[in-house]
Amino acid sequence: MVGAGNLATHLSRALHDAGHEILQVFSRTEENARALAGRLGGGVEYTSSLAGLRDDADIYIVSLKDTALVECAPEICRGREDKLFVHTAGSIPMQVFEGHCSRFGVFYPMQTFSKGREVDFSVIPCFVEACNPDDEQLIHALASSVSRSVYHYTSEQRKYLHLAAVFACNFTNHMYAVCADMLAQHDIPFSTMIPLIDETAAKIHSVEPRKAQTGPAVRFDRNVMDKQLALLKDSPDLQQIYEMLSKSIHKTSTK
Amino acid sequence: MVGAGNLATHLSRALHDAGHEILQVFSRTEENARALAGRLGGGVEYTSSLAGLRDDADIYIVSLKDTALVECAPEICRGREDKLFVHTAGSIPMQVFEGHCSRFGVFYPMQTFSKGREVDFSVIPCFVEACNPDDEQLIHALASSVSRSVYHYTSEQRKYLHLAAVFACNFTNHMYAVCADMLAQHDIPFSTMIPLIDETAAKIHSVEPRKAQTGPAVRFDRNVMDKQLALLKDSPDLQQIYEMLSKSIHKTSTK
Repeated sequence: MVGAGNLATHLSRALHDAGHEILQVFSRTEENARALAGRLGGGVEYTSSLAGLRDDADIYIVSLKDTALVECAPEICRGREDKLFVHTAGSIPMQVFEGHCSRFGVFYPMQTFSKGREVDFSVIPCFVEACNPDDEQLIHALASSVSRSVYHYTSEQRKYLHLAAVFACNFTNHMYAVCADMLAQHDIPFSTMIPLIDETAAKIHSVEPRKAQTGPAVRFDRNVMDKQLALLKDSPDLQQIYEMLSKSIHKTSTK
Repeated sequence: MVGAGNLATHLSRALHDAGHEILQVFSRTEENARALAGRLGGGVEYTSSLAGLRDDADIYIVSLKDTALVECAPEICRGREDKLFVHTAGSIPMQVFEGHCSRFGVFYPMQTFSKGREVDFSVIPCFVEACNPDDEQLIHALASSVSRSVYHYTSEQRKYLHLAAVFACNFTNHMYAVCADMLAQHDIPFSTMIPLIDETAAKIHSVEPRKAQTGPAVRFDRNVMDKQLALLKDSPDLQQIYEMLSKSIHKTSTK
């Protein structure tokens, strides 16, 4: 396991629990490498140097930040050209390995991982891809051993998948954060908002998001919107976000 | 029940199921008034004329669009000055009734209601307020008969509550809609995104949204962000939304 971040940690543990043997953990930060190796039980080696990577793994799972992945791919592959290399990044094409080895692919588990929060890996959609059918089957089998939802999409599709996930997860969480700040400023506990947040997410299990849309922006109710914009007078950034998202909602609802 | 929209419909049914007697339903659109009255069982009257409102209700629940509420409040109260009037609007102060009657308040169930989607009213937070303690107690009792979560906040606080709900629900749903459109354009089913959406919402039950934030904008990873902006080249609106929300996330995470 080349990497010891949130995704690497959750994936390592899921693989370990499924009976796969993790030989070694790499992280530039030795403490993180040691910590993850320790959590996987006795006998798992760790290193903070790419030169210290073992040569005898069947698969090298590279779970580094995008820039580090691009930068380190050549060194990770060097001298191990017959091994299988996969990365876990949503937005990086599998071709990042091309020219450095002959067998490569992608194993992208799409989820928002935070340290200290347990996740049920079996429900996480995993997106796999490989440069040849045999390795694609191998990565598929590996992914299927930890998740019930394994999909095959191209690097091109995965780029949009990752972008869509930024909207559905990262931007959505920011909406929650704005909401929490606003409530705190007016002495209202954030817990009052949880049922609404839950129902908003639950609704789109069965209703198309476009049809589930409610609120003043759908009918572009300038009266309500102007009053709400006035409440945001001390936050020009939020005013701009409010205005733009409202316009976008209205445009979508009239398409 | 003065109104027959989504909120009025769900609230009427919850009140009916809790054993309260709904005497009459008003809607400007007779068909809607008749439909809701019909769903409440035999004997519930309906009218499409404010002049046809009965005089013998204990409480008049006014669930109209904001503009209609402001416009119609005087006529609804006229000749019934000793009755209790409440509205169900998040962003309208209870003073909308002031001068037209002596007993008034608010009963705001905060949820996103869609026709055809059942909701469990008992988990919906209801925000109540009244112009005197006796009527506040009465509205509290009414709300408690249909919901386990009843809160008392002022009209001023409720304005921010409603604004916060626009972020947490309406804007969040729009993020889902953008995501769904993007996936459809690249032949990926929206169902692949459901586990991520669910986990994003579930996470903030136990983690502060600010701390739950993940994604390229947290570390303002210009490399990933520029690539994703390039994918949005045909949607200047979405590019602008992406840029602004990313900036706002980064600002929040460094505060």
